[in-house]
Amino acid sequence: MTAETHWTLTLVCEDRPGIVHAISGAVVDAGGNITESAQFSSHDTGTFFMRLQVVSEADRGAFEAALAPVVARYGMTWKLDVVGRPLRTLVLASKAAHCVNDLLFRQRAGQLPVEIPLILANHPDLEGLAEFYGVPFEHRAVVGADLKAAFERRILEVVEQEDIELVVLARYMQILSPELCAALGGRAINIHHSFLPGFKGANPYRQAHARGVKLIGATAHFVTSDLDEGPIIEQNVVRVDHTRSANDLVAIGQDEESRTLTQAVRWFAEDRVLLDGARTIVFR
Amino acid sequence: MTAETHWTLTLVCEDRPGIVHAISGAVVDAGGNITESAQFSSHDTGTFFMRLQVVSEADRGAFEAALAPVVARYGMTWKLDVVGRPLRTLVLASKAAHCVNDLLFRQRAGQLPVEIPLILANHPDLEGLAEFYGVPFEHRAVVGADLKAAFERRILEVVEQEDIELVVLARYMQILSPELCAALGGRAINIHHSFLPGFKGANPYRQAHARGVKLIGATAHFVTSDLDEGPIIEQNVVRVDHTRSANDLVAIGQDEESRTLTQAVRWFAEDRVLLDGARTIVFR
Amino acid sequence: MTAETHWTLTLVCEDRPGIVHAISGAVVDAGGNITESAQFSSHDTGTFFMRLQVVSEADRGAFEAALAPVVARYGMTWKLDVVGRPLRTLVLASKAAHCVNDLLFRQRAGQLPVEIPLILANHPDLEGLAEFYGVPFEHRAVVGADLKAAFERRILEVVEQEDIELVVLARYMQILSPELCAALGGRAINIHHSFLPGFKGANPYRQAHARGVKLIGATAHFVTSDLDEGPIIEQNVVRVDHTRSANDLVAIGQDEESRTLTQAVRWFAEDRVLLDGARTIVFR
Amino acid sequence: MTAETHWTLTLVCEDRPGIVHAISGAVVDAGGNITESAQFSSHDTGTFFMRLQVVSEADRGAFEAALAPVVARYGMTWKLDVVGRPLRTLVLASKAAHCVNDLLFRQRAGQLPVEIPLILANHPDLEGLAEFYGVPFEHRAVVGADLKAAFERRILEVVEQEDIELVVLARYMQILSPELCAALGGRAINIHHSFLPGFKGANPYRQAHARGVKLIGATAHFVTSDLDEGPIIEQNVVRVDHTRSANDLVAIGQDEESRTLTQAVRWFAEDRVLLDGARTIVFR
Repeated sequence: MTAETHWTLTLVCEDRPGIVHAISGAVVDAGGNITESAQFSSHDTGTFFMRLQVVSEADRGAFEAALAPVVARYGMTWKLDVVGRPLRTLVLASKAAHCVNDLLFRQRAGQLPVEIPLILANHPDLEGLAEFYGVPFEHRAVVGADLKAAFERRILEVVEQEDIELVVLARYMQILSPELCAALGGRAINIHHSFLPGFKGANPYRQAHARGVKLIGATAHFVTSDLDEGPIIEQNVVRVDHTRSANDLVAIGQDEESRTLTQAVRWFAEDRVLLDGARTIVFR
Repeated sequence: MTAETHWTLTLVCEDRPGIVHAISGAVVDAGGNITESAQFSSHDTGTFFMRLQVVSEADRGAFEAALAPVVARYGMTWKLDVVGRPLRTLVLASKAAHCVNDLLFRQRAGQLPVEIPLILANHPDLEGLAEFYGVPFEHRAVVGADLKAAFERRILEVVEQEDIELVVLARYMQILSPELCAALGGRAINIHHSFLPGFKGANPYRQAHARGVKLIGATAHFVTSDLDEGPIIEQNVVRVDHTRSANDLVAIGQDEESRTLTQAVRWFAEDRVLLDGARTIVFR
Repeated sequence: MTAETHWTLTLVCEDRPGIVHAISGAVVDAGGNITESAQFSSHDTGTFFMRLQVVSEADRGAFEAALAPVVARYGMTWKLDVVGRPLRTLVLASKAAHCVNDLLFRQRAGQLPVEIPLILANHPDLEGLAEFYGVPFEHRAVVGADLKAAFERRILEVVEQEDIELVVLARYMQILSPELCAALGGRAINIHHSFLPGFKGANPYRQAHARGVKLIGATAHFVTSDLDEGPIIEQNVVRVDHTRSANDLVAIGQDEESRTLTQAVRWFAEDRVLLDGARTIVFR
Repeated sequence: MTAETHWTLTLVCEDRPGIVHAISGAVVDAGGNITESAQFSSHDTGTFFMRLQVVSEADRGAFEAALAPVVARYGMTWKLDVVGRPLRTLVLASKAAHCVNDLLFRQRAGQLPVEIPLILANHPDLEGLAEFYGVPFEHRAVVGADLKAAFERRILEVVEQEDIELVVLARYMQILSPELCAALGGRAINIHHSFLPGFKGANPYRQAHARGVKLIGATAHFVTSDLDEGPIIEQNVVRVDHTRSANDLVAIGQDEESRTLTQAVRWFAEDRVLLDGARTIVFR
């Protein structure tokens, strides 16, 4: 007698008629019941996206066997996962605590299905925070090209040794090499501040203050070699006014960064974020 | 040679395994392709809710024939409609213009799929507005029980003669009789102001001002005989502060009422609002 | 026996000690009582900004006489106005109705202290709307440089003949000449869409859709010859997701444009917007 | 040679003409320059409220001497404080970590001008969190009337011994006695969840779920003996939908509770919150 498992199933393929019927047939064959379903047909790329939650007594082997003919027929990219399984997550950090603190607090509070085998940082400042939350912390200086390359090799080493599924740049203030961006494609999330209008160059908060913007915010996006231009996962803004100093804007912006990054990580860990070319499909 | 039609299909039934497979099979039989899909299984009531958009060359008869065995087997309540078809809508009004103006402006701008054969009002104030938008306007005084009963009979008469599918109380300031509420069950939407905390009794804006609330808002809900307690469709709030007079709060509240009511009507007209006991399922 | 007047007084000068005492002394001399007060010292420009509301039995002459020595001593730029006096406002329009409709509806509802002697448009589409609200409407085609120059001359002519204090570009889709921008400096407000990140070039909504932005919004700003880069008065955003088409984004963006422009006009008409270099001080 | 001090001055008195002039004269006498100013005249209670920030070389004695004749003449309640001075704050807690974590994190990040000599809790659960942030923690069980009375005596003892200026009920799940509420009047802040509409009785999140509310939020207010009905300081809400379980609503509500309580404490610590009968004036 088998206990029930709560599965997440995500599917991406070329959009054609009959997909839902074929997939729901495979679910029936696996003795499953669909408890949550979301789908989207992208007109831009002609791609079909689906995310299901299924309760079933089938084990992984039986479920995959039922799915096999369908995913083959439609040429699907697919992932079968267990709801709530903690995602293996590597956190990259520098000096700023706000994003790391929010991730760790919510992870411990049971609000973020990740497990963090390591925080890898190019500054030692967050060691005490990591220790409090019982998360291993490793500090490696990044000064000069050699140390930078060594740091990046260490990232890839951890990703492999620790079966890392997601790399989170929690205000990690180094630009990743194009090679590393490619190696982590679709599984690395970054956070940056956002303004209306956008500002180029150094010290954007100072520029935002000088222009008297009334909204500041943050954008969480996938890492690509095109700096700060990867597919957007989540964005938030808050209202500010003329009484705010440039330093105030920094503090306010940090709050937005924290909550925006945590939200993006949560959705990714729940298999709710899929890539559609330069866009994301987020099945909230 | 038949042109394609874009259909909306909503389904409600007892939750059981295999529903999605059965329905998607009927869609395949009707030569349809699912372009949008949302579903929800209510743990509270054990009910399954689904909304599909389907592109198909089948005409209504063929589509319904394909669906017939499935809806029979599962005992489904269902509705098959054409995407974008204007919903036959009766607007009830009193003196206040803000909600009626918003509905008419958006209807004309093509942002609200309704057609309004009549505005029925117990005051003459909005006749000019109706005239500008080319909508028939009928004024009947409601003074005393006889005229009130006559007004309610007129509502039901219009509903029948004009094939009304939705009655919108756009700040119609009369309480409907329990009989009329029952007759319009699930197809009449009202709007009222909302506060944190709630206030009972007369002049709630004055009470809200006296208590120094920091948020005021509006709730759109289905009409039931339990005044202002019908299933909630949509809610919005905005921030206010101590500098606002009670009159300011009224003006701010009216903006929230307008946009909240229009949003609720839009979702209903797009078959996105389904009833789950005392709650609504809104497939946004 | 004189009735009381409710005055608005705005003051701008170099920041120095004693200003508030000097001004409040002048108010006392004019028999006035301060009912609302806001001030701000800009560290960026060393400028002091103040806005007062004062109830007084003094007439304009007596009030100005009381103020005269103070404004002279501090070299103040100042404006004395009556609370609620409708601002003489010229509306420029093209084809889009949403911003004009919102301005006219709120003006008539008593929520916007402006009077609009003319809507000047380079397309005839909004004539019916203007007529409904009883506002004069003038259509002049702008095709080619000569007609464009004639339109701009007409703007300046109306500004002079009608004592216009504010020019509102309510989705007026022509670029103003640098000369006209200079002539209207600090008294012309424009509205444009805003995105995170910003997009350059044609069809920004299509670009925003392609990038999968999660927030779209609008910015109201003073007109300068630097297109869309004038001092920001107000900004708003709303959340969107992957299901929205580029056309949906346009409709959603229009709502933000309407409410953002109307808010900016309201604050300007209430003398709440002051210029601090490239920024605005908004005494909300 | 004296260094400059940045002062906060708050004043409350019966509303009469000439107050601003008198106060700004005292500021001039103290060699001060006003850098921030906010005022409000309450029509409801005929009370005048003012908050100033003043830069001056005067020491406290000299500043108070300059103010003395003015505050005497107008019968003012007043407070002179130094900008940024950490407010002596006692935190009361039970089991829930979210509010306490947010307060401690922001305090350490320099975003909250408080110092916390003690967290007093009726459960031991948060000891580790307190230890991490280096804040003394004291656990006293509250079971039965005697222990409850002892806990309340301990609160008052700490308030006196530690010069406590603010008591924060950070999800402290005990009802305070009327005597304690009176003793802490105007210097104790509580947080509770808020709904549209409000719900009475046990398990409001379950009721909110059953009614299908679309917004849930939190209210921070002063403690009075009228449970959850003290003057409101701050409120926030977020959007939820039918897919959220009652447990989800709890987690979402906790986020709102944290940020709302922290915001209220920040404003209080910055002397921005003044009482106007049953309302608060918040000079944001």
